[in-house]
Amino acid sequence: MTETREPLVIFTPSGKRGHFPIGTPVLTAARQLGVDLDSVCGGRGICSKCQITPGYGEFPKHGVTVEPGALSDWNAVEERYKSKRGMIDGRRLGCQAKVQGDVVIDVPPESQVHKQVVRKAATARAITMDPATRLYYVEVAEPDMHEPSGDLERLGQALTEQWGIGAVYADLDVLRKLQPALRKGEWKVTVALHKGNLDARTRVLDIWPGYYDGGIFGLAIDLGSTTIAAHLCDLRDGRVLASAGVMNPQIRFGEDLMSRVSYVMMNPGGDREMTGAVRTALNGLAQTIATEAGIDPIRIMEAVFVCNPVMHHLLLGIDPVELGQAPFALATSDSMSLDATELGLTSLNANARVYILPLIAGHVGADCAAVALAEEPNLSDDMVLIVDVGTNAELLLGDKHRVLACSSPTGPAFEGAQISSGQRAAPGAIERVEIDPATKEPRFKVIGCDLWSTDPAFTAATAASGITGICGSGIIEAVAEMRMAGIVDPSGLIGSAEQVGTARLVPEGRTHSYVLHDGRAEGGPRILVTQGDIRAIQLAKSALYAGARLLMDELQIDTVDRVVLAGAFGAHISPKHAMVLGMIPDAPLNKVFSAGNAAGTGARIALCNVAARNEVERVVREIHKVETAIEPRFQEHFVAANAIPHATAPFPELAKVVTLPQVSFNTQGGGGGGRRRRG
Amino acid sequence: MTETREPLVIFTPSGKRGHFPIGTPVLTAARQLGVDLDSVCGGRGICSKCQITPGYGEFPKHGVTVEPGALSDWNAVEERYKSKRGMIDGRRLGCQAKVQGDVVIDVPPESQVHKQVVRKAATARAITMDPATRLYYVEVAEPDMHEPSGDLERLGQALTEQWGIGAVYADLDVLRKLQPALRKGEWKVTVALHKGNLDARTRVLDIWPGYYDGGIFGLAIDLGSTTIAAHLCDLRDGRVLASAGVMNPQIRFGEDLMSRVSYVMMNPGGDREMTGAVRTALNGLAQTIATEAGIDPIRIMEAVFVCNPVMHHLLLGIDPVELGQAPFALATSDSMSLDATELGLTSLNANARVYILPLIAGHVGADCAAVALAEEPNLSDDMVLIVDVGTNAELLLGDKHRVLACSSPTGPAFEGAQISSGQRAAPGAIERVEIDPATKEPRFKVIGCDLWSTDPAFTAATAASGITGICGSGIIEAVAEMRMAGIVDPSGLIGSAEQVGTARLVPEGRTHSYVLHDGRAEGGPRILVTQGDIRAIQLAKSALYAGARLLMDELQIDTVDRVVLAGAFGAHISPKHAMVLGMIPDAPLNKVFSAGNAAGTGARIALCNVAARNEVERVVREIHKVETAIEPRFQEHFVAANAIPHATAPFPELAKVVTLPQVSFNTQGGGGGGRRRRG
Repeated sequence: MTETREPLVIFTPSGKRGHFPIGTPVLTAARQLGVDLDSVCGGRGICSKCQITPGYGEFPKHGVTVEPGALSDWNAVEERYKSKRGMIDGRRLGCQAKVQGDVVIDVPPESQVHKQVVRKAATARAITMDPATRLYYVEVAEPDMHEPSGDLERLGQALTEQWGIGAVYADLDVLRKLQPALRKGEWKVTVALHKGNLDARTRVLDIWPGYYDGGIFGLAIDLGSTTIAAHLCDLRDGRVLASAGVMNPQIRFGEDLMSRVSYVMMNPGGDREMTGAVRTALNGLAQTIATEAGIDPIRIMEAVFVCNPVMHHLLLGIDPVELGQAPFALATSDSMSLDATELGLTSLNANARVYILPLIAGHVGADCAAVALAEEPNLSDDMVLIVDVGTNAELLLGDKHRVLACSSPTGPAFEGAQISSGQRAAPGAIERVEIDPATKEPRFKVIGCDLWSTDPAFTAATAASGITGICGSGIIEAVAEMRMAGIVDPSGLIGSAEQVGTARLVPEGRTHSYVLHDGRAEGGPRILVTQGDIRAIQLAKSALYAGARLLMDELQIDTVDRVVLAGAFGAHISPKHAMVLGMIPDAPLNKVFSAGNAAGTGARIALCNVAARNEVERVVREIHKVETAIEPRFQEHFVAANAIPHATAPFPELAKVVTLPQVSFNTQGGGGGGRRRRG
Repeated sequence: MTETREPLVIFTPSGKRGHFPIGTPVLTAARQLGVDLDSVCGGRGICSKCQITPGYGEFPKHGVTVEPGALSDWNAVEERYKSKRGMIDGRRLGCQAKVQGDVVIDVPPESQVHKQVVRKAATARAITMDPATRLYYVEVAEPDMHEPSGDLERLGQALTEQWGIGAVYADLDVLRKLQPALRKGEWKVTVALHKGNLDARTRVLDIWPGYYDGGIFGLAIDLGSTTIAAHLCDLRDGRVLASAGVMNPQIRFGEDLMSRVSYVMMNPGGDREMTGAVRTALNGLAQTIATEAGIDPIRIMEAVFVCNPVMHHLLLGIDPVELGQAPFALATSDSMSLDATELGLTSLNANARVYILPLIAGHVGADCAAVALAEEPNLSDDMVLIVDVGTNAELLLGDKHRVLACSSPTGPAFEGAQISSGQRAAPGAIERVEIDPATKEPRFKVIGCDLWSTDPAFTAATAASGITGICGSGIIEAVAEMRMAGIVDPSGLIGSAEQVGTARLVPEGRTHSYVLHDGRAEGGPRILVTQGDIRAIQLAKSALYAGARLLMDELQIDTVDRVVLAGAFGAHISPKHAMVLGMIPDAPLNKVFSAGNAAGTGARIALCNVAARNEVERVVREIHKVETAIEPRFQEHFVAANAIPHATAPFPELAKVVTLPQVSFNTQGGGGGGRRRRG
């Protein structure tokens, strides 16, 4: 068609096409067309990242016929690579195969620079790989005493010429390694380059002689009050190589955030103890996760942190006392980029970089920002409420027009704390509960066993762990089931054995408790749901609900289209029971989703895609923060939400739950209120 | 003249003028006109930096008459300041005095932001104050829980609004101080802000509650192989508050650079010992100089370094071995900006910044770059040769069209080392020598005494120090005088007592020595100039001369218009003797200047003026480097320059030196060559 009639090269799946002179390497053609074809070695036949699959025969869609000789012959470089490392049949190296005639070239996903990382949650977008830290192989000019320049400057020049990278700099540590690496590699080296989203220049984080492909890695860390969870990701392709968690050792200074702030108030300098404790734990966690993945932790070049404001300040070594009192002033709210060594994270690469997501407000942390990054309420067409349930609940409400955020002081009841038989989610903890509305008999599941307690094999299957207590999701289900079974009235009062008609109700002082499980015969505990437990759950769920209502008031809406439960705990809450309990505003059950650890996912996105850092910073600036602590309407909503009005599911999807008549065990008549609807 | 006829305000010395509404503060008028009037507190009557002197009466030149009421009355703020701190009569505070009528306002030099620092050398330009680190007083908004943002972000916002400063950031150390400083200062603080010449963002280096004017300081450090010299400068006005020097403790690893490089070659890890030694010395020097100036060293916010390449690498902790062999490859040649703590400089402010000037080549260091910055050969209309004489000599030759640089391996003879009676410049060292051409009798001066040795009071005046040896400038003068007195022939050979006709010549093996001073009767040494001393000086001066010739060859010139001798030693060399000796190319004596410690001056310029950093970086990029080490013509010039051809001054200005017939004591005829002239 063209006059020159140079061969036509068509890339799939991009569809990009162009004419190239005979002899053009496929990699060169791809680069000129802007096709996303990876290469670390810059086309020198070393890295094999540029593998492509030529197609032969008729391509009616593209209007070409590819002849057998459309690419140059399989060559020695390709043969050597295939025999040493293996290569899928039909694949070629894009830097070796040269265009000889019209050809259709498929770029397989793993050969793309901006690979997409598969995410589990169906509703979530994929992560496009574009990390701040990448490897580059480069051939550096030898020193010339007649044109004197430094090794670093010649490295920079080579990176500009061979990779189009602008000004680079290196810390002293890398400068010291530069001379020996260049000479050992005979002026060929691989460098790990880092350019954060706010960096004007590119930094050399590490250097290896010759071609290095031992991998570079990053940590996405969700630093929670109770648990520190981390994903170790391969910075080349975003794969999660290992995940691990440890308890936050600060727990010994206080179970929840405010008790840790109080510890500092009572013990000047106590923040330094807590800072030291969490940093030590983080170094240990990095070691553990690296060992699990079989890598050397000095290959970890980056860590991304999400955390609540108190953890943020304690990680950075900033006194958190201001966060314990109005106006809850943060020392800094913007994202931070710093050296891992500044945080005492000495187990990573000596030049590893840390990125901490921005905070939203004194009560709404970088973890909530990460949830926003992962769940993108700011792009949502429908009105979505995102609830990140942990020791404090953080809420996001909005759509593409506007997003609000607040935190609710739920306290740790949802995590099994302050519950008589409560315990953390661990083997042996009751996590699912059903109560027969007719017989009032329960059945349950414990963590570590898939059987219901009514299964004949259950006792044997749980012999190892025993039945030790009840965890957060278990107590929520228990209370909701007790309500639906008529054991608890709308005010939250537990009836007596006589009132309800079951011997499982036992008196406990002036109130009653429900015996969920009695293991005393086998030397185990008796697991009760007490009146105090119900009250604790009521307080927590009222706080959560009041926070959501406050945000809805601000948007002047009475319903939400979609609810997303985030947080490790959110992943285990049964939406049905949450709604019976009145934890969250009513929504169709098929519109209630679990996002798993969305904060951790947000951290992983920021680790794998540097542009996402700009995005989350922009989104956070645009989020409108609502402060619950001093808002009178929050108190109103809180009091009003104390009752457990539903004894049945509020939506047809829940209709299978048996409906019982409304009972009240309190002679004064219980609470009444329930949730008010506007209009 | 204008229709509104608002009062006319004329500023001197700038001549800027404009009409302003009645009531406009003088500071406001100055800012609107772009008049250079200082203010740290932003016009709040706190800092007193904006002092101005109103003029009254007739100003025919400006065409105005200033009435007594042209400015608002002296007010309470001014009275308080004057009574507490004092103020020159007639001065007003520019932020308090308001325009009431036509007025002429003089801005005294000390009230200008871009003050000029007086420099001693008459030929040198003044330094304009524009340091990278400055103080700003700022009033920060209090936290608002309904518009949550971090303290740092509100500080940044205030700096933008009140000072027009862009994005700021702070290290963890400053972040930790931010909360208490803001609260103690009731949301008014003073910050030290730093923006280096390559920085995209401004960094908060330190913070003080309220208005702080305890001063901030900087160090200009010339890190030499033998001596480390530092100036402590006030970063507000550029004044040198104290100067101090210490011996470089690396001397114990080797007297000169190459012996230190050899030490590392022989003792792997030896570079770490030397790095540690020099860093310890620098911390001590900072303490010493701060004590001398009566300031706390934690107020030192910046240090600027100049040094030769080996010292540069050893300061940074980089192995210098590559610099000991061709191709003399630098690890890095560009300027560096880093934290003082990276260099272990812990005695300065915890966030102090370091700037190191760029290197020119593997043999031509940041000290030479600093000389170029101070002496500006690149702006010169005439052809200037700048010689920085130290253990190695570094040379710059050129004019506004082109500048060349090289180093010459002179060795330490010019510093008195490798000389039989040589010693460092210290009290008791002979520094000036004259020899009577008729009698061959010498007279001399020693350091610490202004009298010639022939003065009757000399013995008493030097009793304390004694006469201990001969320093670098002394040996140069001695050799030149010996030549001019006919004691030494053009080849450098010393004649015998009989040949020359003086008993001061004594045999020393197969050669002869000249007795400059015999103190043995008083228990002092006999100070000789031996044949070996003459040879050592000949080698050194040949190297220096050959370097200059090589540069002249490159520019195809045979003469230079101007010679500048730089370096602490250069300040003491007698130009006449240097020229007799053939150290430097011939030039009219009144065109030979001493620039004193030009490298130190260059460091001070870069400390006081951040734009000068860009300038020196640009100049260094444009300097053409000539490598002497492997250049055959250097050897030719070196051999040819070995003779001491002049027995008289080569220019009329030297004609007063008695001319003697050319003699030769070597029966083979001595060296002959001398300097060849082209064409």
